[in-house]
Amino acid sequence: MHKLIRQLYPLCRSITGEGLRGTLKEIQNHIPLTLHEVPTGTRVLDWEVPKEWNIHAARIETLNGEIVVDFADCNLHVVGYSNPIDRIVTRDELSAHVHTIPDQPELVPYRTGYYAENWGFCLAHKVWDGMQDWSYRVYIDSNLTQGSLTYGELVVPGQSPEEALISVHCCHPSLANDNLSGIAVATEFARYILGRANRLTYRILFIPATIGSITWLARNEAVIPRIAHGLVLSCVGDTGTYHYKRSRRGDTVIDRTVAHILANRNSPHEIMPFSPYGYDERQYCSPGYDLPVGCFMRSPNGTFQEYHTSADNLDFVKPDALGDSFSVLVDIFNLLEQNVVYLRTDGRGEPQLGRRGLYRAISGQKDHAAVQMALLWVLNLADGRYSLLDMAERSGLAFEQLAAAANLASQAGLLRRAEPR
Amino acid sequence: MHKLIRQLYPLCRSITGEGLRGTLKEIQNHIPLTLHEVPTGTRVLDWEVPKEWNIHAARIETLNGEIVVDFADCNLHVVGYSNPIDRIVTRDELSAHVHTIPDQPELVPYRTGYYAENWGFCLAHKVWDGMQDWSYRVYIDSNLTQGSLTYGELVVPGQSPEEALISVHCCHPSLANDNLSGIAVATEFARYILGRANRLTYRILFIPATIGSITWLARNEAVIPRIAHGLVLSCVGDTGTYHYKRSRRGDTVIDRTVAHILANRNSPHEIMPFSPYGYDERQYCSPGYDLPVGCFMRSPNGTFQEYHTSADNLDFVKPDALGDSFSVLVDIFNLLEQNVVYLRTDGRGEPQLGRRGLYRAISGQKDHAAVQMALLWVLNLADGRYSLLDMAERSGLAFEQLAAAANLASQAGLLRRAEPR
Amino acid sequence: MHKLIRQLYPLCRSITGEGLRGTLKEIQNHIPLTLHEVPTGTRVLDWEVPKEWNIHAARIETLNGEIVVDFADCNLHVVGYSNPIDRIVTRDELSAHVHTIPDQPELVPYRTGYYAENWGFCLAHKVWDGMQDWSYRVYIDSNLTQGSLTYGELVVPGQSPEEALISVHCCHPSLANDNLSGIAVATEFARYILGRANRLTYRILFIPATIGSITWLARNEAVIPRIAHGLVLSCVGDTGTYHYKRSRRGDTVIDRTVAHILANRNSPHEIMPFSPYGYDERQYCSPGYDLPVGCFMRSPNGTFQEYHTSADNLDFVKPDALGDSFSVLVDIFNLLEQNVVYLRTDGRGEPQLGRRGLYRAISGQKDHAAVQMALLWVLNLADGRYSLLDMAERSGLAFEQLAAAANLASQAGLLRRAEPR
Repeated sequence: MHKLIRQLYPLCRSITGEGLRGTLKEIQNHIPLTLHEVPTGTRVLDWEVPKEWNIHAARIETLNGEIVVDFADCNLHVVGYSNPIDRIVTRDELSAHVHTIPDQPELVPYRTGYYAENWGFCLAHKVWDGMQDWSYRVYIDSNLTQGSLTYGELVVPGQSPEEALISVHCCHPSLANDNLSGIAVATEFARYILGRANRLTYRILFIPATIGSITWLARNEAVIPRIAHGLVLSCVGDTGTYHYKRSRRGDTVIDRTVAHILANRNSPHEIMPFSPYGYDERQYCSPGYDLPVGCFMRSPNGTFQEYHTSADNLDFVKPDALGDSFSVLVDIFNLLEQNVVYLRTDGRGEPQLGRRGLYRAISGQKDHAAVQMALLWVLNLADGRYSLLDMAERSGLAFEQLAAAANLASQAGLLRRAEPR
Repeated sequence: MHKLIRQLYPLCRSITGEGLRGTLKEIQNHIPLTLHEVPTGTRVLDWEVPKEWNIHAARIETLNGEIVVDFADCNLHVVGYSNPIDRIVTRDELSAHVHTIPDQPELVPYRTGYYAENWGFCLAHKVWDGMQDWSYRVYIDSNLTQGSLTYGELVVPGQSPEEALISVHCCHPSLANDNLSGIAVATEFARYILGRANRLTYRILFIPATIGSITWLARNEAVIPRIAHGLVLSCVGDTGTYHYKRSRRGDTVIDRTVAHILANRNSPHEIMPFSPYGYDERQYCSPGYDLPVGCFMRSPNGTFQEYHTSADNLDFVKPDALGDSFSVLVDIFNLLEQNVVYLRTDGRGEPQLGRRGLYRAISGQKDHAAVQMALLWVLNLADGRYSLLDMAERSGLAFEQLAAAANLASQAGLLRRAEPR
Repeated sequence: MHKLIRQLYPLCRSITGEGLRGTLKEIQNHIPLTLHEVPTGTRVLDWEVPKEWNIHAARIETLNGEIVVDFADCNLHVVGYSNPIDRIVTRDELSAHVHTIPDQPELVPYRTGYYAENWGFCLAHKVWDGMQDWSYRVYIDSNLTQGSLTYGELVVPGQSPEEALISVHCCHPSLANDNLSGIAVATEFARYILGRANRLTYRILFIPATIGSITWLARNEAVIPRIAHGLVLSCVGDTGTYHYKRSRRGDTVIDRTVAHILANRNSPHEIMPFSPYGYDERQYCSPGYDLPVGCFMRSPNGTFQEYHTSADNLDFVKPDALGDSFSVLVDIFNLLEQNVVYLRTDGRGEPQLGRRGLYRAISGQKDHAAVQMALLWVLNLADGRYSLLDMAERSGLAFEQLAAAANLASQAGLLRRAEPR
């Protein structure tokens, strides 16, 4: 995953354009992603697909031709969606177009102005402090044209039409944690589920933030009712504590699943209520949709010093952190894969386990008493009203213990699966 | 408000009679109150309107003609509804008709015996201690006649037939906090809403306690279903902590509104559960009615030393305390005035705020980030199931921030009001 | 109750056989218990009634004829349902059939192997340590025959077809707390309710654990819907803290009743959630039945050192503890007897209590203010939606105070009983 991040890091992504398109094409080398191109001007819900923005070069030079800021060094240097310009401006005029972080004078900030029809540069505050000439030449070789918005979509059909949605944004330029970590983990997760048979149908979206999810929602009216669970992934490559932001409904199966998995791992974590500020869960959870989609992160947006700066770089994301995030994701969806409702086949009362050799089956295992309790819980709650997750929550046992017990009982003919829900 | 209390303080109010009638007539000098006269003997629910009681003079004299206790000095001296008497009694016989507070020997207690067909005097314990003659002359010039029970009612029609009820008792003689403070604040509040257009219809009742609310309920069967919110006001002139006693249902809009307003002001306060003991909320919340009516107080009945004594006087109620109680009341009903349900007009997803100049509108304000969050919350929750109060409770933001954001969004055409509820 | 325990202690009970049958016949000397005999091989739910087991003698002897372990001394010495044997075995072979408690070397453990087709001995670890011969003679004079499973049932009809179920297990040999204490308290409780008229119909079961309740459930399909409340009693003779394990539903009337009674007595107690491990509540609360049956104990199974050992003897159960457990049981069912729903007969509003002499009735009692509040609560909540228990929970008053107030109000014609629920 870190290798993919390194490959994608140099590309200058935005909500449209070749950087975004190139990113998705690179992902196609790993998974069979479908690329959608939605033309500029297409009406999507309350919005309109904007012009396509591309940039080739940009710099600030002294009048002596010395380059003091160069897009070629760092693609954060240009404000996203900057108009082209080639002009000599006074330092005073330039100052209205320059963004720095005085508190972090070494770092270049990340800024955009998608709908601003303007231009701008982002630079380290100490560089700006050193620029004391009367005037400078500013040069941006960009263009805004009738083009298209690109997004990637992978559908992995399962036995059930019920869908699990995973959505990552890929519209940020050289920011490693905030966009590339999600892209890498989602790509790896796609490879994982492609390699096996699944109960759920999976839909993985690689989209520009906000306008991308708005566009997808506008074009997929028929898919929406099938979305049973969803996660937006973001900032999953740093070493911070896990954070999960609940869906708008707050108590959906995905909300309870993530809480159960995080509580049963030994890593600290925090569960946050829904709020309408953050990533694309804002759109999936907007009124009229209100989908069961939460947001899974390590350090949340805006809470770490490197956020939206040049310090969110390849050193900031760690292979181990990516790997652990991936394994949490696997645990979450493995739970959902197995979260079925069981019904007793043998009628009422407690079945006679000894006659079926179930005590033998149990005593062969390490954690004898725990498995026996799991078996008793599963048999007691298999009345058609409890999913395995419901049983785990009620019994206080780990989901995997109940799933193992349900398997034993199913093999012994004591349980059958009800229709999935 | 304190001036009105000073004017009304000398009148000898009871559950019927000229003191009550005179009080209501004085209030008519401030607001267009309708006076209702309900004849003695009228059947009202399980009760009957009692005889009208009036009193002109009362005293205890020594046999030498020295007046030791005089109603003209303090109208608490006579037990309410005392029968007339003019007789010489032994101190021993008198002691069965005398009420004092041994623990507070300087204070005259307040006692009544509406349905007791008896007579009695209330006096300072130290006066009683000093009365060591063998016998005294007792004189009460009162009468109990076929008359009527008087109550005042003001209806201020609003756009909506939905009613807000405010009820204060006015049956206590010279007690300033316990009855006059509520009368004064309710009168001032009536002036306030008379001076503006209201969404809600307001109904303000000035009634004798218990029998007054019973009488009003019996005569207003058709009004009762329209009562959407109600408050009984009492003891709002002392400097104690605010107390709110919830309605019987416990989670009505008025209960949640008062809790929200008190939590968002910086004054300490306490929310108490409903109990069937207290003021007229007992009647409004009795089975068969079960109206959404709570009780708003500073120091609750029975919890302060001055309660039902001559120390509940003009010094005990403070202009500042009255003023602050009034302003809480205004906050409560301003919230209810604005507590409508909004629906998005622009369909699903998050609307494009920039295109509508809403970011500009926002950035012109001081508390930029807070207002932006309020706007996002309002747009996210405007699905027809959330009132603004629901939104405030869910977001943790103050109601007024959400109301401001809803106004902005309405002006931008993004919201419309649903039918009020 | 302790005397009955002493009488029953020597009998060698098991899930079938003469020890069980003799126990039930002894109980017939106190209450008119019906004995049911269900033949071996009868299909009961998922189970089958096992062969009847009887034992007459058992011992381990040295080859010199010295008896080292003798069933005649302690009927725990033989594993329940041991097959007959008469053979010389090496100490090594014997060790696979011997059960001891190394941590408690003085105590004989209690073990069974109902469906194991095996034999075994239980002995004090220090005895086993002292047995160092090369081989021993083992002798068990038992038999497993076509016979029957015996259980006792007493139905005490009440005014209502609604039933209260009390179930105790009686399949353990000389264990005093774990089975005999429940038997004694249930017998005494049966005598108590036989001596008076009851609203509820009572059904008291004396059954072998698991297979007994399974058998009863299989044979009483028509009774099951009438069971409104139930308690399994066990371990009620020791001096430990009371424990109540909730029914599977967790908030049934019996659950709330036991919690209310224990909270209103001054003894410490603990309320435990349901779990599918324990006594016969496992069966009553299994899916398909899910009856409102909890389990009432002092020290729960498995939590005290004497549990399932020879130390659970006649000294371990105390007359005072039995007596107090009995009185809690009486309190619980007295509450249920009186837990009806009341309706106001006098319409809406608060009734005029004075006119009905209810203030007089009240002032004649000691706890004046408390009774007055109870009366106000009862009159306020008598809207047909509150049982007396609901009222007690809401008001925070003790059930008996509300019941007394409801009686007063009923006598005054202010309340009538709604249909019981």
